[in-house]
Amino acid sequence: MIVILKDQENKGQIDLLVEWLKKQGVSVQATEGIHRTTLGLIGDTSHIDIDLLRALEIVEDVKRVQEPYKKANRQFHPKDTVVRIGDAEIGGGSFAVIAGPCSVESSEQLSEVASAVKAAGAALLRGGAFKPRTSPYAFQGLREEGIRMLLEAKRQTGLPIVTELMDPSQIPLFEEVDVIQIGARNMQNFELLKEVGALRKPILLKRGLSSTLQELVMSAEYIMAGGNEQVILCERGIRTFETATRNTLDLSAIPVLRQMTHLPIVVDPSHATGYARYVAPMAVAAVAAGADGLMIEVHNNPAAALCDGPQSLTPDAFAEMMKRVLAVRECLA
Amino acid sequence: MIVILKDQENKGQIDLLVEWLKKQGVSVQATEGIHRTTLGLIGDTSHIDIDLLRALEIVEDVKRVQEPYKKANRQFHPKDTVVRIGDAEIGGGSFAVIAGPCSVESSEQLSEVASAVKAAGAALLRGGAFKPRTSPYAFQGLREEGIRMLLEAKRQTGLPIVTELMDPSQIPLFEEVDVIQIGARNMQNFELLKEVGALRKPILLKRGLSSTLQELVMSAEYIMAGGNEQVILCERGIRTFETATRNTLDLSAIPVLRQMTHLPIVVDPSHATGYARYVAPMAVAAVAAGADGLMIEVHNNPAAALCDGPQSLTPDAFAEMMKRVLAVRECLA
Amino acid sequence: MIVILKDQENKGQIDLLVEWLKKQGVSVQATEGIHRTTLGLIGDTSHIDIDLLRALEIVEDVKRVQEPYKKANRQFHPKDTVVRIGDAEIGGGSFAVIAGPCSVESSEQLSEVASAVKAAGAALLRGGAFKPRTSPYAFQGLREEGIRMLLEAKRQTGLPIVTELMDPSQIPLFEEVDVIQIGARNMQNFELLKEVGALRKPILLKRGLSSTLQELVMSAEYIMAGGNEQVILCERGIRTFETATRNTLDLSAIPVLRQMTHLPIVVDPSHATGYARYVAPMAVAAVAAGADGLMIEVHNNPAAALCDGPQSLTPDAFAEMMKRVLAVRECLA
Amino acid sequence: MIVILKDQENKGQIDLLVEWLKKQGVSVQATEGIHRTTLGLIGDTSHIDIDLLRALEIVEDVKRVQEPYKKANRQFHPKDTVVRIGDAEIGGGSFAVIAGPCSVESSEQLSEVASAVKAAGAALLRGGAFKPRTSPYAFQGLREEGIRMLLEAKRQTGLPIVTELMDPSQIPLFEEVDVIQIGARNMQNFELLKEVGALRKPILLKRGLSSTLQELVMSAEYIMAGGNEQVILCERGIRTFETATRNTLDLSAIPVLRQMTHLPIVVDPSHATGYARYVAPMAVAAVAAGADGLMIEVHNNPAAALCDGPQSLTPDAFAEMMKRVLAVRECLA
Repeated sequence: MIVILKDQENKGQIDLLVEWLKKQGVSVQATEGIHRTTLGLIGDTSHIDIDLLRALEIVEDVKRVQEPYKKANRQFHPKDTVVRIGDAEIGGGSFAVIAGPCSVESSEQLSEVASAVKAAGAALLRGGAFKPRTSPYAFQGLREEGIRMLLEAKRQTGLPIVTELMDPSQIPLFEEVDVIQIGARNMQNFELLKEVGALRKPILLKRGLSSTLQELVMSAEYIMAGGNEQVILCERGIRTFETATRNTLDLSAIPVLRQMTHLPIVVDPSHATGYARYVAPMAVAAVAAGADGLMIEVHNNPAAALCDGPQSLTPDAFAEMMKRVLAVRECLA
Repeated sequence: MIVILKDQENKGQIDLLVEWLKKQGVSVQATEGIHRTTLGLIGDTSHIDIDLLRALEIVEDVKRVQEPYKKANRQFHPKDTVVRIGDAEIGGGSFAVIAGPCSVESSEQLSEVASAVKAAGAALLRGGAFKPRTSPYAFQGLREEGIRMLLEAKRQTGLPIVTELMDPSQIPLFEEVDVIQIGARNMQNFELLKEVGALRKPILLKRGLSSTLQELVMSAEYIMAGGNEQVILCERGIRTFETATRNTLDLSAIPVLRQMTHLPIVVDPSHATGYARYVAPMAVAAVAAGADGLMIEVHNNPAAALCDGPQSLTPDAFAEMMKRVLAVRECLA
Repeated sequence: MIVILKDQENKGQIDLLVEWLKKQGVSVQATEGIHRTTLGLIGDTSHIDIDLLRALEIVEDVKRVQEPYKKANRQFHPKDTVVRIGDAEIGGGSFAVIAGPCSVESSEQLSEVASAVKAAGAALLRGGAFKPRTSPYAFQGLREEGIRMLLEAKRQTGLPIVTELMDPSQIPLFEEVDVIQIGARNMQNFELLKEVGALRKPILLKRGLSSTLQELVMSAEYIMAGGNEQVILCERGIRTFETATRNTLDLSAIPVLRQMTHLPIVVDPSHATGYARYVAPMAVAAVAAGADGLMIEVHNNPAAALCDGPQSLTPDAFAEMMKRVLAVRECLA
Repeated sequence: MIVILKDQENKGQIDLLVEWLKKQGVSVQATEGIHRTTLGLIGDTSHIDIDLLRALEIVEDVKRVQEPYKKANRQFHPKDTVVRIGDAEIGGGSFAVIAGPCSVESSEQLSEVASAVKAAGAALLRGGAFKPRTSPYAFQGLREEGIRMLLEAKRQTGLPIVTELMDPSQIPLFEEVDVIQIGARNMQNFELLKEVGALRKPILLKRGLSSTLQELVMSAEYIMAGGNEQVILCERGIRTFETATRNTLDLSAIPVLRQMTHLPIVVDPSHATGYARYVAPMAVAAVAAGADGLMIEVHNNPAAALCDGPQSLTPDAFAEMMKRVLAVRECLA
């Protein structure tokens, strides 16, 4: 950590600061420039609150040299984390596709979609039971009933299930759920992160719409700090000025996260682009960029159902996409 | 609502769609252009899920003519909402300043700051007991103990208190809290919004870092849909590419929200700018733009305490700011 | 085009507006809603200035149904444009890689890099002679001398050359240049666009840092309106809040632009990511998403030269990347 | 400047780097941390290209301690620059309002608006003769004829004129123009900046839609490096995800720029908000935040003319706004 002091600094205050820093267990090396003095802190600075330092009157700025995350940090844990869910594996060279409808609507719908995505090669079934909706007047999901239908589909197809948790009070309902999803809007719902950190179940953590990759990894660190190290990171688009797609899918996140952390990385092109016609090219691109998995919305009858987003693929389009995805994985292996 | 159909549309499907729309209780007027047909929906379209329509194969795009919010909509409720908290009033021409430390640290600190801000003209005391922190290793607030200290400061000074709620499970602790704050990261924590919608207590709702103003009003609508109409909106900066300030304070939000909604609007220049030196000019600017209130971080000894952000004002700087704020309010009255 | 009128509209003013619109050659169909009246304009609306309409006191909003571009519009020109440069072809299924140093530094450097990228499969040579630099004190390029060196390298290797034009006054120097690049910062330098629209030479048009895809196509339309229809669009990253990469590469631009326009699309992962280690994965991903070409920075000795950006690949890394790129193209063919 | 070296660094390479740095005239102090070594560079580092250093294989990151601008830097020139144009002064406590139509349309229109804004207290007249338009089919301005009309209006009213230059070839037409405006889209048109740097005439430099404040100051530095030190900076909104306003007016730019530079700062709320109804509140807010001037679009008959943006004020609304602006300036004096 490097502390840049202000121009007209006070010698007494600097001495007090250096003394205080040494008490925090770091050693301090001062460099006097022409206009400014900088202090280099040597040792473990992860417990020093950077905001505290910035608050000091004599401090101009503080710059980190080390990352503020530990358990998720590849530097300290070079080996890829592999998350195992039933027969599926994500990470460390293993790849899995999660597919299913945006919302669980009925047993029939779910059963039909689940069979179709399984046949096309999906390894996990997704479906929303608790739905975060911008409007209080929009459909909020089948909730408990939706979870029940997902478990039924799991029994029928053998596919492990992934579904979103929105509040700690819902946790008891998720006992048999295989992977708990934390949605983009809850990526910094720190109380919720602590709760799922106390579980021993894989967590799929979606990147917030305006969260940096470092913040995503810090939220994973929250979960891991509670002892739950089975975290899957999910890039799902960030909010920008561009309106041609719902969000801007940031595929550079894959190689960047790969370097920052050992956790597996999946990509959700359905929510990111918001249009079915862009899902397949972006799914293939994500795999080419090195993603460990994909999360894809599939609906058995998007056009007639009047109950799903414009971003869902038909089972046929999904099967077609899977062929291209697997072809690219093979040729890059 | 206007539904724009795709170019090569299918007459049978259009008829089915028109029939379905009529069943939803709206009347439909078709306009045939050279390349495209559009459908104008007439009547109450607030319960029609725009995403459902966009999902249809024959639909190119759907554009709203009416806003999707009702209870918060100024069009239907032209009169300003005034939120009363003890002797303070916010909205409808009344103005109030909320001030206090970022985090509650000790009874002494809080007591000292509370007296100082009251003397300078603040009408409410703020202080964080539950603190959302990016890092799991950073100070998470004094929690229950912090709430206790706030209530003690309230008894001493008579100032009503404002503090942040992070999870529904904490609600019992907030019984004597005067205004519950929902933080920026929880603006779309819809389960939490529903819970505070069931209370009968003013809610200060902060704008999310990447939330549009319409989304902010929709989140207020969540609270109001539950029957709690005492919502105060708070602009606190949005995330942009600019790094000279922590976030970009969007003061245009004031006149824009004024037109959209009858709810009171306060501005938090401390979190938005992130630097104490920019707080006073932006507070004065917010008042000039028509804000109904301000939320300001004040700390009794930012430089020595090592326990507060670089954005806190000293009590003296706060008193100085208050003079300018009140001068501008007076000259614009 | 749909014109949404304000709530309390004035019948006389509406009649005047309708009359004026009819004089512009469009027919008008009014739809009266409960709160608002909307006018549907039927016919060719591309010459109606949307800002003019929005300015009218009785108009609430105007929404386009048709795109404002014609020559670049795929709807009117379904067949892919193929740009031919010497033996290279870009677009319509043909693919080409443009590679070379960020700046031309010397004949030796350029010659060495040109031979290396040609051997690895690049079809065009790039190199900056006129360099847009944020600081007036930074190296501004070898300018005329740089163009001379590029032409020399072209003679040696037979590779056509691509280099950036910054001002109309430089055009005479570009006579033998094969492809003129318009940089991201000049994407809306409309006078420059008009000048290159008068040429009969391929133009590589880079997307501005905060330009929407529609604005990019509108800038291509500027060039095409002048009669020069050989425009290659280049996605090179947009400015967002994320700081882990220099910009955020928006690969969704590929399928989106593919639908909007018939012009070829290339991707520049070097400038977008800003780090050599992310270039290869993003190049491969761009190809998987359907790019017609790539633009890659290659330097013969990035580490020792002290004269190039951290985003350049070594010739060896470039050759390695080319293998993966071509493998993916083959398996997706 | 602080150079952070990579973890597994090579002693020989570090020695070479240190030697090279010393040759650049700076002294180097190394700090060895547990994981990383950092080099502190002492002396004048403004001529060291930060990109060159970042390119080195052994370098992890480079952080600036000093700003890369000199002539515009308040640290080296603490006294406010005052730009004098006829009787008007901008900066150093002096305040001036620039007003007029977006585009010059006719002598009558200009004459009428000029008289009206003068009567209301404007000190300079603005009007676009060369208009940057997104579409090649939109009105491009009256060009030469527009300049002629502006000069005529100047003779009539005595108001100095401000108008936009889009290309160096137009400079001869601007001989009698008092202030040359460089538009947002040309803020990083470096060739144009160099050309106006060679003039001895005030330049009003608008912030680019996605430019940081440091980049704005660097563009001013380009002009000043050419010897023209009469630069006025103009905040006119940045591009964000928010769509309720055309751009997001960043009023924090005022106190931030005030600290960075001694140059005067004006604010353009018309282009920033895009709607006439938001112009007055934001103009007043800008003045409250400390702006040295305002730039306001005024049209004599926005509703009937069909020739101006929805952001123009009527002369009456402008006069009303001026009263509030001057009231705030007075009460904050």
